[in-house]
Amino acid sequence: MKVKELMDTNFLKVYPDYTVEEVAKLMHEKNRYSAPVVDEHDKLVGWVNAIDLLILNDEDKKKEIKEFMHDVDKVIVLNENDEAREAVIKIVKYKVVSIPVVNNEGKVVGIVRNCDITKTLAKLYDIPVYKLFKTLQEQLRGITWEELMEAAAIVTKQTTGEEITPEEYERRIKNATFGKAIWACGGLEKFFAGLIRIGEVALARKVAKKRGM
Amino acid sequence: MKVKELMDTNFLKVYPDYTVEEVAKLMHEKNRYSAPVVDEHDKLVGWVNAIDLLILNDEDKKKEIKEFMHDVDKVIVLNENDEAREAVIKIVKYKVVSIPVVNNEGKVVGIVRNCDITKTLAKLYDIPVYKLFKTLQEQLRGITWEELMEAAAIVTKQTTGEEITPEEYERRIKNATFGKAIWACGGLEKFFAGLIRIGEVALARKVAKKRGM
Repeated sequence: MKVKELMDTNFLKVYPDYTVEEVAKLMHEKNRYSAPVVDEHDKLVGWVNAIDLLILNDEDKKKEIKEFMHDVDKVIVLNENDEAREAVIKIVKYKVVSIPVVNNEGKVVGIVRNCDITKTLAKLYDIPVYKLFKTLQEQLRGITWEELMEAAAIVTKQTTGEEITPEEYERRIKNATFGKAIWACGGLEKFFAGLIRIGEVALARKVAKKRGM
Repeated sequence: MKVKELMDTNFLKVYPDYTVEEVAKLMHEKNRYSAPVVDEHDKLVGWVNAIDLLILNDEDKKKEIKEFMHDVDKVIVLNENDEAREAVIKIVKYKVVSIPVVNNEGKVVGIVRNCDITKTLAKLYDIPVYKLFKTLQEQLRGITWEELMEAAAIVTKQTTGEEITPEEYERRIKNATFGKAIWACGGLEKFFAGLIRIGEVALARKVAKKRGM
């Protein structure tokens, strides 16, 4: 995933000769905490932050924004072709709310906002655990859903000591998300180990049953 | 994970009789875009947002903050015992930068900031894929690391048509993160299905080898 797939292209931009008052009004209207300052070719020349404007008095507010903007050299920037990962690293490292995105010509083409990143990252956590069990069942050809749930109940008993019926287990995973499951298991690796173990137990029981027949 | 494990307890709070000027100065000094307004018992009575203060003139700035704060009824709030998941949902839904956290008595005990959430969510994506293969190997007792890499190269050839040596495969996963891997595979379920398939192939080859002996 590239930054360009993550960025918001509907952003507020301002020009260096706008007054502070004009910029403040625009930020308030559009509900934006920051904005890129661009020249007539849309090239990034600075960055404005609501916090910096907060302390300006009425006289300062009549002045041009270029006097109070952060210089372009000090602005954290992303290229539209950067990996989305880069945006996450910068948001976390610099604790910023948003980052301007430029193309190879230095033109501002979008803004990456922290809330958009949160939304994207959170999607993984929201995947139903149920789907992963279905994937497991599909991969282990010949194992029925019931057999998989029986194996899951056995593994639960072995690892946690908890007595649970296959039906209860099924009900539990129906309401669980991947995010919740990895927390409950104590991490991704442990969750994953548990799933493999369930698959193994299901297969071993199948083999034992066949031999017994 | 609870909200209390995620929240920042080192936050800026202000009182209703502070002037707008005082609040603006504090926000600027502490680099905070918003702050809870509390009474003498630390109970939440309102919320101040940098954007709202931007448009106030010098005369308004002499007034008390309570005239310009968001009323407590309209503030998005978290309880310290809420699931961390709840914070993510609210940040994404309301596109806010931070949310005040109260305890059961209604006292403000912290702030959940979007950048802290991003940091927490991003941890999962950063887990090395290598670790998951190690987990797989540990679960499949009797399978060596070399055998697992051989199986991985075979599955890669089967699914993508790509010729890859076990050594190349190993080098590739050494540098990959979980986040990168699920993107490359086209989703969590597909990544997971691939891992199970690799485990199955490794086991089948082991059995075939034993029979051949």
